[in-house]
This record gives sequence, C-alpha cells and structure tokens, in this order.
Amino acid sequence: MSVNEIKALIDRLAAKKIGMYHKDFLLTWEKTRDEIDATFLVADILRGMRDANVSPRVWHSGIAVSNFRDNSTRTRFSYASACDLLGLYVQDLDEGKSQIAHGETVRETAAMISFLTEAIGIRDDMYLGEGDRYQREVGSALDAAVASGVLPDRPTVVNLQSDIDHPTQAMADFLHLAHHFGGIGKLKGKKIAMTWAYSPSYGKPLSVPQGIIGLASRFGMDITLAHPEGYDLIPDVVALSKKQAAESGGSFTHVNSMDDAFKGADIVYPKSWAPFDVMQKRVPLLKAGDQAGLKDLEKTCLANNARFQDWECTEEKMKLTKDGKALYMHCLPADITGVSCKAGEVAASVFERYRDDTYREAGFKPYIIAAMILLGKRKDPAATLRALLEKGHQRETL
Amino acid sequence: MSVNEIKALIDRLAAKKIGMYHKDFLLTWEKTRDEIDATFLVADILRGMRDANVSPRVWHSGIAVSNFRDNSTRTRFSYASACDLLGLYVQDLDEGKSQIAHGETVRETAAMISFLTEAIGIRDDMYLGEGDRYQREVGSALDAAVASGVLPDRPTVVNLQSDIDHPTQAMADFLHLAHHFGGIGKLKGKKIAMTWAYSPSYGKPLSVPQGIIGLASRFGMDITLAHPEGYDLIPDVVALSKKQAAESGGSFTHVNSMDDAFKGADIVYPKSWAPFDVMQKRVPLLKAGDQAGLKDLEKTCLANNARFQDWECTEEKMKLTKDGKALYMHCLPADITGVSCKAGEVAASVFERYRDDTYREAGFKPYIIAAMILLGKRKDPAATLRALLEKGHQRETL
Amino acid sequence: MSVNEIKALIDRLAAKKIGMYHKDFLLTWEKTRDEIDATFLVADILRGMRDANVSPRVWHSGIAVSNFRDNSTRTRFSYASACDLLGLYVQDLDEGKSQIAHGETVRETAAMISFLTEAIGIRDDMYLGEGDRYQREVGSALDAAVASGVLPDRPTVVNLQSDIDHPTQAMADFLHLAHHFGGIGKLKGKKIAMTWAYSPSYGKPLSVPQGIIGLASRFGMDITLAHPEGYDLIPDVVALSKKQAAESGGSFTHVNSMDDAFKGADIVYPKSWAPFDVMQKRVPLLKAGDQAGLKDLEKTCLANNARFQDWECTEEKMKLTKDGKALYMHCLPADITGVSCKAGEVAASVFERYRDDTYREAGFKPYIIAAMILLGKRKDPAATLRALLEKGHQRETL
Repeated sequence: MSVNEIKALIDRLAAKKIGMYHKDFLLTWEKTRDEIDATFLVADILRGMRDANVSPRVWHSGIAVSNFRDNSTRTRFSYASACDLLGLYVQDLDEGKSQIAHGETVRETAAMISFLTEAIGIRDDMYLGEGDRYQREVGSALDAAVASGVLPDRPTVVNLQSDIDHPTQAMADFLHLAHHFGGIGKLKGKKIAMTWAYSPSYGKPLSVPQGIIGLASRFGMDITLAHPEGYDLIPDVVALSKKQAAESGGSFTHVNSMDDAFKGADIVYPKSWAPFDVMQKRVPLLKAGDQAGLKDLEKTCLANNARFQDWECTEEKMKLTKDGKALYMHCLPADITGVSCKAGEVAASVFERYRDDTYREAGFKPYIIAAMILLGKRKDPAATLRALLEKGHQRETL
Repeated sequence: MSVNEIKALIDRLAAKKIGMYHKDFLLTWEKTRDEIDATFLVADILRGMRDANVSPRVWHSGIAVSNFRDNSTRTRFSYASACDLLGLYVQDLDEGKSQIAHGETVRETAAMISFLTEAIGIRDDMYLGEGDRYQREVGSALDAAVASGVLPDRPTVVNLQSDIDHPTQAMADFLHLAHHFGGIGKLKGKKIAMTWAYSPSYGKPLSVPQGIIGLASRFGMDITLAHPEGYDLIPDVVALSKKQAAESGGSFTHVNSMDDAFKGADIVYPKSWAPFDVMQKRVPLLKAGDQAGLKDLEKTCLANNARFQDWECTEEKMKLTKDGKALYMHCLPADITGVSCKAGEVAASVFERYRDDTYREAGFKPYIIAAMILLGKRKDPAATLRALLEKGHQRETL
Repeated sequence: MSVNEIKALIDRLAAKKIGMYHKDFLLTWEKTRDEIDATFLVADILRGMRDANVSPRVWHSGIAVSNFRDNSTRTRFSYASACDLLGLYVQDLDEGKSQIAHGETVRETAAMISFLTEAIGIRDDMYLGEGDRYQREVGSALDAAVASGVLPDRPTVVNLQSDIDHPTQAMADFLHLAHHFGGIGKLKGKKIAMTWAYSPSYGKPLSVPQGIIGLASRFGMDITLAHPEGYDLIPDVVALSKKQAAESGGSFTHVNSMDDAFKGADIVYPKSWAPFDVMQKRVPLLKAGDQAGLKDLEKTCLANNARFQDWECTEEKMKLTKDGKALYMHCLPADITGVSCKAGEVAASVFERYRDDTYREAGFKPYIIAAMILLGKRKDPAATLRALLEKGHQRETL
C-alpha cells in the first residue's frame, strides 16, 4: 500500500462518526456501524503502514496487560504482536482463582495493574454468564479509579473471548471477507452458513458462532444458522442477530440441517460447539470441582455428539454451495478428519484447499486488536495516524 | 506538572549530595537523607515528565531482570511498569531452588544474566536471615564480574522485599504522605501509629512494619509501634529506628495497645504480621519441607492470633485519632472484615472511606522503583533528566 | 571500540560473499567460511556499537519467538538480550507436547505465531533424531507460508540447541578464542582437546562436543576428540569433522585417553556427555513415558560413568598441556569437584583459575545470536549497520 493510499484510508476514517474513546470493546453489537467500519479502517491503515515500513508506534512506553483465564496460543501471539506494534509492553496477569471471589478484589486488582497501563486484554470464556460480566466489572473498576484520580488515564479493555462474543476473531474474519470480496459493502446479499460441525471433543465455547451471527447480521447478509436439535446458542444472541439482519436488509434462517445451510452459500463456517444447556450444566460442576460430574457430563455429551458425525464439511457438502466454491472459514485449529482426529469438522481435502485462506484470515487478528486499542485510547485517531505517517519513522532499518 | 516545575525539581535534585551510582538499594537506612530525598525527587520528576507527555526513556535497549522468590502481583506490575518507562525489557529469572544451594552458583548466575542487564529486582522475603543476605551476595557477584571485566557495567540491584526491609513499599508510602501533607518536610512532628492488626492468616512478613519504622524515623516523626506481646519485629531494626527517631528530632514509643497507638495519631498503618520468633521457627521447617511441623506451627499461631481479634481498625478506634481523621494506610491487599474475611485488619466502612487513598499510595511505587534504578545507574542523574527533557520525545503520539 | 574501528569491521563484512538472507542458522557446517566469519564480524560490530553507546536497534517493533523444549536460563537470557538489543519483543511459545504430534500442526503453528515475527529461536535437544528435524520442519512451514502470501516476510530460525549442533554456543566459544588468541586466523595450528569428563549425572546432550568439533575443524586446528570407549558422538558428525579438518589444513585425532588429548594442547574443553547409544535407547523410553525403564537406564549409565571418575580436569592433567597453560573452556554450568558435586568434570582450583575466562566466553553469546538474526533478515547487512551507525542514536541517555 502506498502512502497516498494510506492517507485516503485515514480520510475515510476521519469522516466516520465514532465515540469509542475511553470505551471498551466487548461486544460488536454495542458498536455502531460507523465504529465497526472505523475498526476495519484502522486495522487496514496499521497494516498498510507496517508494509510501507512506517512505524505505527503510538507509545514509547506503556503496559498492555494480558489476562488469559483460559489457554491461548493464537490470541496470545496476536495480542502481543498488536501491543508491540503500537509500542506497548505486555505484562501477563497470572491470577489464582481465589482472587476473583468477590467484587472488591476485582476492583482493587484492576487499579493495581493499571497505573501505567494503556490496554487490558481479557479472555474469560469458560463459564456461561461470567466472562462478559467479569470484563464489565473490570471496566467499571477502571472508571471508578479514573474518576477518583487514582489512574491518570483510562486503559481500554479488549475482549479476547468471553462467554458471549469473540470480537477480535469475528472482526478479523470479516476483514478477511472484506478483502476477499472487494470491500465490506460487497457482503450485502451474500449467503453465509454458520453451522455446527462434529468434533470428538465437547465443551467448545459458543462465542465464535455467536460472534459470527452477531456481526454478519450488520452487513445485510443472508445468514443461515444450522445445528442439530439441542445444540442451541444463547437465545438472546440469536434473537438479536435476527433483528439486526432484518434492520440491515439481510435475512436470518435457523435450520437443523447442514445441507440446507450449505445450499447456495457463498461462505461456510462449519465449527463445533457445545450445546447451551450443557454449558449451563457445566458451570456448577466446574465451580464445585466435581470431576465425577464433569466426566459424566462429558460422556453423555460425546455420546450425543456421536449421533451427528455426518455434520462434516465434506467435498459432497461443498458441492451444494454456490458453484461448489463457497469460501470455507475457520477460527483454527480445525478438527480435520484423518489428520488431527479420526472423524472431525472438515474433510482433509477441503481443509487443504482452503488452508492458506484460513491462515490469511487469522493474519488479520493482530491488526484488529491493535485497531481496537488505538480507537479506545485516542480521541482523534485520524490525527494520531496522520502524525505517525508524517513522522515517518522506519519500522526497520534497511 | 509544567515543564518549568519539572526543571525546578531537577535543580533541587542537582543540589543534593548523593553517592548512589553503582550502589544497590537494599535498606533505606543505608541511604543518607539526601539520597532518600533524591529518590523522592526523581520519582516526582519521572511522574511529571510522563504526565507532561515527555518520554523518560533513558535506555533504547537493556534487560531488567526480575527475580521473584515469592508470589507477587502488585510489585511485579510496578517493577514492569518502572522498567518499561525507562526503556528496559523485563526478563524473569525463574530459578529452581537447587540453584541457590551454594555461593558458587549465585556468583555464576548473577554474571550469566547480566551481560546486557541494567537492573535486577529481587523479592526474597520468605526466610528470616536469608533475603537480604542473598541480595548482597548477588551484589558482590556483580562487583566481582565488573572488576574482572566480565560485565561492561554494574547492574543495580533493587530490593523488591527482603526479610528485613521493603524499601519500594515504604518509599512509595512516604512519597504518598509527602503529597498528602504538602511536602516531606511537613512530616516533622506528625504522629504515625504502626500497629499490628488481626488477620485470619499467619506468616505475613515483617518487612513492611520494619520498613515503615525504619523510614518514618528519618523525618522527625513521632512513631508509635504497637503489637500484642510476643509479636516482636527484628530487635535490631527496632533499636535502629529508635536511634534514628531521636537523631531526626522525633520520638519512638513502643506499646502493647492499639488504642494507645491510635490516640492522637495523624497517620495509622494497621497491618498484620507474624511474630519474629515464629518466623524464626518456620525457617528450619520450610527448609526441611516439614509439612506436619508447619501445620502444627500454623495451628498454634492462628490460635494465638485469635486472642487478638480486637486489634481491628474500627470506626471506634479511628475516633481516637487526631480529630478522628487520621490518614489510614495499607500496603494492600488488606484483610477487610466482612469482605475478604469474617474478621480482619480493618472494618469495611473505614477501608471504604480510605480506599482511594490506599490506591493512590500504591500508585507511587512504579515511580519509586524507576527512581531507584535511575539513581543506581547514572553518575549525574540531573544531567540525564535534563537531557531527556530537552529531547522532549513524546511518550504518546496524540 | 571507536567508531572508526567499527567502520573498518563493517568494511570487512561488506567484502564477504554471503547468502544468509532468509536462511536459518541450524548447523555451522551448512555455512560457508565467509558466512562464519561474517557472523563473528557482525557480533563484534554489535558489541562495539553498544560499547560506543550507539543503539544497534534495527527494529522498532517485531516479535522474536522463543520456543524452549528444554529448560534454559543462560540461553534464554542470551536470546532475550540479543532480541532486545535489536528492538524485538520476545514472546514465549509454551506448547503442550500434543501440538507436535503431526506435521500439520507444526505447519499451522509456525504460521500462526509469525504474522509480525522476525525471528524464532528453538531449543529442542532431548531426543536424538528429532530436534534438528523439528527445526527444519518449522523452516519449511515458514517457506510455505511466505510463498502463499500468508506471511509478509520470512522470519529467521535460530538453533538454540538441537540434538546435532549447538551453534550459538560453539560460535560464542570460538569468538572468545578469536579474542583470546588475537584473531580467528590465529587458531590455525592450535591444538584443541575436546574431551569427555566425568559427571555424576547422565543424559547430557551431545550437541556441545559435536558443535565444537564441527566448528574447530573449519579453522585448520589440530583437534583431539577423547572419550572412554562407548561414549561415542553421532558418527556422521565425527566423520564430517575429520573431513573438514583435513580440508582446512588441520588434523583430527580420536583417542580413548584424556591424558593423550591434553598433551601439548593449547585449549582444553572437558565436558560430560551421554553415550550416543544411550541417547538412542532413551528416545523410546522418554516417548513412552517409561519411568521404570528410564530409571534402569540411568542406573546402568551412572554405574558405567563411575568407572571413569579419573576423567577429571585436574591440576595434574593441566600440567600435560602446552606450557601447562592451556586455555580451559566450558559451556557452563560445570560440575566442579567439591563445589557442585563430590566428584565432577573439573578440579575446583582449575575452575577457579579460569572462572572469569569461562564467564567472558559466555558473554559473547548474546552478540552471536543477534548477529545470526540480523544476517538472516538483512539482504545487505553492512548497509544496515552503516545506517545505524550514521543515525547514531544513543543507546542510553547520559
């Protein structure tokens, strides 16, 4: 991307009406369409600047806290890359479970880790009803600490996956689609199949499919959500997505057949998840540390899953899609039949054909995270980006 | 703070007679009064520069080692923030216990981790008689490595809590007091009550109360140290504090009543700790890994503690203080009655009233640590700070 | 080193014919003599620049992945120091064993961690036949990801110890020798004794002795490899070293006597390792998690080791060397008789005399690693270094 092209994107950003300053990025559906578009634009601008060897380092010191309450490799590297690109140093908060027992301590910890902190990325996706709540509790604690003069400035909280949404994933997925189809505007009228797929594991979070339908429904797309009976998502998120689909000039269809979802689809996103009611049953068992109960639940679930082994993204199923050439998507790692498991979400030949596409998809995540941080921390992000471009510091000495 | 105000602080710093270059910061009472004041000044200058969006980055590469031999969240973040502010990259030394068995290895490890290292922060507070000794052993190893040409420069060691002192905590506490009362000079004649408080745990280190009396006694304050019989601190530190109090024109009273300590106090610091002789008994048990012995000791201790549940900072006790309005202090986290435990160090309503004060208190720690590092590494710290101010690099691009 | 001396080294670098750009540094014997010399030169240049307070920071953001599949303190700090010196942020990849079960996942992980990554340092030395293979697999995955446009640029892989070679150690060792003897050219005709030594442990990797003979044989040195019968190295590496020694005008002698090796030696490197066939037997046991089998093997091995307790670098043995003054080398930590163990690789008095030398030896490693990264990432490294020197940014503000 040339410097002039970058400038043109900054001009487009400047024209957006946004109010993201000192706000957190927790759920895409809390952001206006202009704010969503601004996030895509900043991500593209940052990538463009890096490609043009212009350093987009906003900060020359500052902490970015990472708080992973569940394992992560991909998002950890994306977050670290994003923060480092902006000039922030990642310090991990490795908390014991006991520290989250009462609100007092969340309030205190949030202040204690934030004296020189610009961003806090949180992954908390294990317990239904908790991750999003915790992230908001941190946000409120930060508001209080700023109001009382404890903190010099409000760090921005970025949801790195909660029980409800996975906005860094969904936004990266749709920036990938924008690049693939020639612009986010080109998604209008495109058919996307967000469908459950078989996996020999259980307990996968709901946040990815929820994130996808919650975001796809902003762009006038025709969404089909498909899963076996009983594999429901959080009902509120489905209802909201239906409403948003209608408002944006798209549609929302809910079926119990993978084939129906794939028919004529431009995009397919076959991905396993645990049923909503199983996730609900898990919460008290996990909290009680009831290993026997968890084993039992797993057994029942896997037996139930096994009835739906035909929910696999095979070559036959792909033939049902638009011209047999729908774009396959996945948040990775996929359960690939005959490769990572005996029977899984996707046939090896299908995955192989789209492997590079899924990798490119993942490659947008660092820039999306960096954009979320920058937009939460800058009153006039276009001015900041213009200033960085004018400074023109080389990212690497050639 | 305006740039001119910062310059005025640098002028004051330049007037201090200090010899901190290539020395370590292990105990406040090894530092002259000018050196203590210089540390406060540099902390304020660094904070002022950051607030004025001037980067105080001294280094453009360099390692800051963190060596936590006990858990830490607050100090870990403070240290990381301080180092990052100065431009250093924190690399954690996560050692196995076996590596510290003999001096040879401390000497070797100290050299091996220091080839490109500017600072080494060490927390070692578990065993009475060991933490401070270990920190000095590291310092001697560094001296030897510099003398033999193994290291190009002497990294500075910062005590992040030893068995004897907790200087980053105590110095942050007193910088907080200086800001609260309008200058460190205003502390003369103020009454501070450093008192034991009940906690349903045992084995809390002595370094905080020792650090407080060891530092308060430098400023002409009237100190009352209060604890139940048997909850002694290290006798040498108490004796030293008495001597210092007299020399600085203050006083030192030692009582066995919380009420007596609170009467007329300007400042109260109610905080639990383990009795000195219990800490001594723990050392051989911890070293032997004698779990049964430790359990027994804990049981005896907790039973003993329980006799002193009335050592709680209640509203009633606060009424005994000067105008009922003494400043409450705590190093956090506090054991808050009815919040973090059934009965603890402080009543919920008292803590709530002073919560923001304790958070502000904690907020000085990153700057204190950064000041200690800078003063240990710069022959002419005023010149360095002036140079940084003149360069005037933005910390963040606006 | 003066700026003019640094410039002279850069001129010498510019005259070397090298093709290291976008290549990995896995085995020294895959590099031409000019490439080896270029690595030494860049290491000296970077050290010189740092000593002259000129920042050699090539990057102003960028990730350096560390992937330690075995414990490490020294190399971890060397790698962190090297990356930080160049401006890279180290992000650790802490993988579960399961992730490496099939090539698919290595391919995917390699791409996922590399979107904004400049370097990947890997230590994988536990299993014979695996470490080097894994490093190459990562390299191939990166090639594929660049070819398909998934990655914007090829990160460079640096071998931080494999089953075959330990190039960052061997190169640091020989840069130390170059400085000690007045230039790498002065090593021609020098006698080096790479010999096994007794240690009360077993299972030490072969990569250090292999790295030493594989590199010593490039400089026309007279190499003696000595070990008790049965303590063989990988035969291919020995054969290669013999060939290289002949080609470079040196010699290679293989004996079963420490005394024979020490006789007339200019340099001695007494260091324990496990016999090749034991390392081979360990692989299936380690993979099967066969604790009983491993215990049995250890017992047999230690019993066998015990027969060779006289393979110790004593004062008597040192007297056999050239003028009794050979340079003692070790990669550290050494098993020192009477210090770190009852009987070990080296007598305490010998080690003490050479302690500072071994520390200086270790001090070259950060610069060697930085040189490997820079050479793998820069088409015209001399131009980059000249540009950095011209910019002349201070590493530290004075």
